[in-house]
Amino acid sequence: MIIVLKPNTTREEAEPILKRIEDLGCKPLYLPGTERVVLGAIGDERVLDSLHLEGHPLVEQIHQVLSPYKLVSREFHPHDTLVRIGDVPVGGQGFAVIAGPCSVESQEQLHQTAEAVQKAGAHCLRGGAYKPRTSPYSFQGLGEAGLELLQGVSNALSMPVITEVVEAADIDRVIEHADALQVGARNMQNYRLLKALGQCDKPVLLKRGMSAELKELLLAAEHIVAQGNGNVILCERGIRTFETATRNTLDLNAVPYLKQRSHLPVVVDPSHGTGLRDLVAPMSRAAAACGADGIIVEVHCDPSVALSDGQQSLYPEQFKELMDGLRPIVEALGRTL
Amino acid sequence: MIIVLKPNTTREEAEPILKRIEDLGCKPLYLPGTERVVLGAIGDERVLDSLHLEGHPLVEQIHQVLSPYKLVSREFHPHDTLVRIGDVPVGGQGFAVIAGPCSVESQEQLHQTAEAVQKAGAHCLRGGAYKPRTSPYSFQGLGEAGLELLQGVSNALSMPVITEVVEAADIDRVIEHADALQVGARNMQNYRLLKALGQCDKPVLLKRGMSAELKELLLAAEHIVAQGNGNVILCERGIRTFETATRNTLDLNAVPYLKQRSHLPVVVDPSHGTGLRDLVAPMSRAAAACGADGIIVEVHCDPSVALSDGQQSLYPEQFKELMDGLRPIVEALGRTL
Amino acid sequence: MIIVLKPNTTREEAEPILKRIEDLGCKPLYLPGTERVVLGAIGDERVLDSLHLEGHPLVEQIHQVLSPYKLVSREFHPHDTLVRIGDVPVGGQGFAVIAGPCSVESQEQLHQTAEAVQKAGAHCLRGGAYKPRTSPYSFQGLGEAGLELLQGVSNALSMPVITEVVEAADIDRVIEHADALQVGARNMQNYRLLKALGQCDKPVLLKRGMSAELKELLLAAEHIVAQGNGNVILCERGIRTFETATRNTLDLNAVPYLKQRSHLPVVVDPSHGTGLRDLVAPMSRAAAACGADGIIVEVHCDPSVALSDGQQSLYPEQFKELMDGLRPIVEALGRTL
Amino acid sequence: MIIVLKPNTTREEAEPILKRIEDLGCKPLYLPGTERVVLGAIGDERVLDSLHLEGHPLVEQIHQVLSPYKLVSREFHPHDTLVRIGDVPVGGQGFAVIAGPCSVESQEQLHQTAEAVQKAGAHCLRGGAYKPRTSPYSFQGLGEAGLELLQGVSNALSMPVITEVVEAADIDRVIEHADALQVGARNMQNYRLLKALGQCDKPVLLKRGMSAELKELLLAAEHIVAQGNGNVILCERGIRTFETATRNTLDLNAVPYLKQRSHLPVVVDPSHGTGLRDLVAPMSRAAAACGADGIIVEVHCDPSVALSDGQQSLYPEQFKELMDGLRPIVEALGRTL
Repeated sequence: MIIVLKPNTTREEAEPILKRIEDLGCKPLYLPGTERVVLGAIGDERVLDSLHLEGHPLVEQIHQVLSPYKLVSREFHPHDTLVRIGDVPVGGQGFAVIAGPCSVESQEQLHQTAEAVQKAGAHCLRGGAYKPRTSPYSFQGLGEAGLELLQGVSNALSMPVITEVVEAADIDRVIEHADALQVGARNMQNYRLLKALGQCDKPVLLKRGMSAELKELLLAAEHIVAQGNGNVILCERGIRTFETATRNTLDLNAVPYLKQRSHLPVVVDPSHGTGLRDLVAPMSRAAAACGADGIIVEVHCDPSVALSDGQQSLYPEQFKELMDGLRPIVEALGRTL
Repeated sequence: MIIVLKPNTTREEAEPILKRIEDLGCKPLYLPGTERVVLGAIGDERVLDSLHLEGHPLVEQIHQVLSPYKLVSREFHPHDTLVRIGDVPVGGQGFAVIAGPCSVESQEQLHQTAEAVQKAGAHCLRGGAYKPRTSPYSFQGLGEAGLELLQGVSNALSMPVITEVVEAADIDRVIEHADALQVGARNMQNYRLLKALGQCDKPVLLKRGMSAELKELLLAAEHIVAQGNGNVILCERGIRTFETATRNTLDLNAVPYLKQRSHLPVVVDPSHGTGLRDLVAPMSRAAAACGADGIIVEVHCDPSVALSDGQQSLYPEQFKELMDGLRPIVEALGRTL
Repeated sequence: MIIVLKPNTTREEAEPILKRIEDLGCKPLYLPGTERVVLGAIGDERVLDSLHLEGHPLVEQIHQVLSPYKLVSREFHPHDTLVRIGDVPVGGQGFAVIAGPCSVESQEQLHQTAEAVQKAGAHCLRGGAYKPRTSPYSFQGLGEAGLELLQGVSNALSMPVITEVVEAADIDRVIEHADALQVGARNMQNYRLLKALGQCDKPVLLKRGMSAELKELLLAAEHIVAQGNGNVILCERGIRTFETATRNTLDLNAVPYLKQRSHLPVVVDPSHGTGLRDLVAPMSRAAAACGADGIIVEVHCDPSVALSDGQQSLYPEQFKELMDGLRPIVEALGRTL
Repeated sequence: MIIVLKPNTTREEAEPILKRIEDLGCKPLYLPGTERVVLGAIGDERVLDSLHLEGHPLVEQIHQVLSPYKLVSREFHPHDTLVRIGDVPVGGQGFAVIAGPCSVESQEQLHQTAEAVQKAGAHCLRGGAYKPRTSPYSFQGLGEAGLELLQGVSNALSMPVITEVVEAADIDRVIEHADALQVGARNMQNYRLLKALGQCDKPVLLKRGMSAELKELLLAAEHIVAQGNGNVILCERGIRTFETATRNTLDLNAVPYLKQRSHLPVVVDPSHGTGLRDLVAPMSRAAAACGADGIIVEVHCDPSVALSDGQQSLYPEQFKELMDGLRPIVEALGRTL
């Protein structure tokens, strides 16, 4: 940790700070420059964090030398982690495709959609039973009835299923019905939820928050892993920027950035990442090309009447085309679809 | 609602959409232009929302004519709402000052800080017992013990107290100890929490999410009010932008914008809104000058050792100066401090 | 154009606005709803723009039905435009690779770099002679001497060259030495420069501004094309967001979005779009996969001593690897590298 | 300057970097830590900038200790700079009000507006003759004829005038007619223009770019001051964020931040900063309250027919109310209006 002191700070004034560093068991350095005094603190930055120097009146800036996350970092664990949703591996040689409707609306809608995406080559089913919605007047999901529909279709088609959980209190119920749990963008920093998910043994697909830095996404994953559940899949789903032509700005830089710094698998959600049906297929190809381990895509048997996210949901035939266009890219990279 | 159809859509193709509008009990309009056909739908936009036309393949754009929120709007309820935290009115003639430490750390720290801010003129105490923290390695708050300390100091000084609640399951416990509940920025779209708060009778201070549009803040408030609790205070606390010189960008435009469109009181958090101790006093004055109903400020008896947010916490004497500088501004506006 | 009037506006008050629409030769519509009166104006939106109604005290909102650009739109001109830089086509079957140093620093540096990128398969050379730099104390480019070096190397290697122009007054000089002109992100809305470029006959590579919406990029291109120069190449180079892990956020959504709405070719700059050397190759593949017509990449014979943008410049051998990884992707899409 | 090296870098590998620091006349430090080696470089950071180490393959991060600007900083020049536009001081005890139409449209429009704002208490006239516009189909200003109208009205009313200059080549002409020159947000990083303005002796009002960090605004000012013209006024005019309820997000944090770090005067443009007429008066008060030295406001004798920015232009009577509301705030701060 590097600590830059305010102009004209004397050695004497710096002494108590050097002492605080030493008291933590770290090694303090005193580095007088031409216009500023700089202090160094050598040791574990996670320990140094408890120095709480950011509020000190003599401190001008603090620079961290090491990353604030550890368990999820590649430095700590150099090899790729492979996470299994049911029997579908995510993070290995294969490219995983998770597809299905935004919300579970009815048995028929779910079954018809699931059958279509499976036939086109999807490995895993998605569908929301609890829907966090911006307006209190929008459809909020079928709740537990939706979970049962998901499990029924999943069993009928032998297709593992992933669904969102919005509160720690729901985890036990959701776990009974689903093969993996999704944390939505709005809950990426719901630490109670993360902690509770860290104590269960199902895989967690963690979506990046709409305004979360990549460092914060990795720290959110660290919250889960630190509790003992290492089966975390990171998901880039677009961030909020000034651009309104698309619903979100899909930040594909995140894919190689995360893969280089973390051992966890990374998937991309081109549906929320664009918000526009016509952009989903090209951005799925782009996700594969820059190294993503899979995609999670919204498909609806009839988007023209979808109760949520209709604008970004693919028609079944569009999803088939997406898969056909994706295959040569995935294979060109030496992976399998 | 205005619905712009894709180029070359025929009247015949538009018919089923017109019928869907009519079936909802609304009045459809067919408006052929030179390059596009436009449809109008006259009726309650909250009803029209259930048309779910955004996913229709013939629809190019949808424009809403009315705002998506209702109960919190000034059109619906023209007069200012006055919310009381204990006996402190927020939203009337007075300018409310809520002050205290970021986190409750100890009895001594809390009592000393509370006494100092009360002496300088603060009306209400703040302090966090449950702290959502980005890193799993940071101080997470004292929990229930913190709540008890808050209540003790509040009683001793006859100063009402507000504290954050992070999960619906905690509400009953927090309500016993506090006069008002705060929803943090990370939870602004935690709809389970909002719904549960809507069913209790304590005032709620709702912070704007870091990347929430003002429309979304008002919709979050609508989630609470729609459940029956009208005692909601809106809080601008800075948004996330590209600017990193300050921790957040305090969006004071929000103050007159919200006051003009909603009847709910609006307060400002210049501590999180700037992240820098030296900006807190000037931005408090600016908040008052543009019409805020109060401020919520972090003060610590010794910020140089604060366990959280030390960088933005004021020293007690700085808070006194803030109050001294604020008074003439508040009075120039015909209000009282 | 759809014009929403303020609540309680009467027919009588709306009449003068309807008249203004009619006086422009457009067709006015009067559409009273339940809570608002809406007016329609049928005709060319570029004509309707001169209504200047946005400041009218009775107007609450204005929604445009048609896009504000025309000449660059695919509706106006359905077929792809192919632009030639020297003899290198951009926008056709081939995938164009433009590579070279950020700044021209010396004959040796330029020649060595150009030779390396050509050998690895680049089609076109890039290099800056006039460098807009944030700090007045940074290297500002070699100016005219740099232009001469560029032309010399271009001739020696029979490799067309593109370079940045920063002011209308420089165009004549730059045109003599280069095959195409680049407008940098900071100049995307320098309308004098755009207008002057519209009056010359060399191709223009127009970079998206750091905070420019896609609509604004297309309007900037419209400024050039409206003057008579249709040889415009659009370039996505990353936008400024809250994310600081990367220098910019490369917005690849822009690629299919622009290709669907405009006939102009689109290239991607993964060097500025990431700012990190290790992300350039994966993002080049992603750009190709989502439909870009080419890339523009910074390469330096020795980035460890580069006078600008060293952090994002590739070593020659890294560029060769980039090309090797790009080839199968480009071919999987049925294009050639 | 602090240089963090990549993991596992040896002392031997670090040697050439230490040598480069020494060769520049600075003092190198070698600081091995537990997981990283850190190097320090003591000396002028503007000299250290020419190290060009950011591209070095062994370098992981670089942290600057000192600010990259110097001449505009308060450390270099502790006392407030007072800039005079004609005989109107900006940056002293008074609070300067600059008002007038967005564009000069006609003699009558300009004279009528100028007379009204002067009567209400404005000190200085504004008006655009050269208008940079996003669409090539919008009104682009009257050009030189507009300059003559500005000068005529300025003389008739003895009111100094400020107008925008968009290109270095125009400066000589604009200087003849105006008392101060404005650099628009889109030109904040037009370094040719900044350099040329630095060589003239009229005051320059420099607007912050739409996505410019405060550090970049100060560096843009440094470009002007470094050429010899110290009469620079900084102007906060709103930044581009995800919020679309207002045209821009007025970042008033900028005011105390800039005043604390720079000796230059700071004014605020609440017209562009909000884009909504009803927010201009409250945000003007807020600007004064947080320490701005003045405001620049758009007023039009009849905004309902304004050729540009009508939505944010005040009616003359609204401007009078703004002034009446501003006076007690300005006086409460011990300044005069």
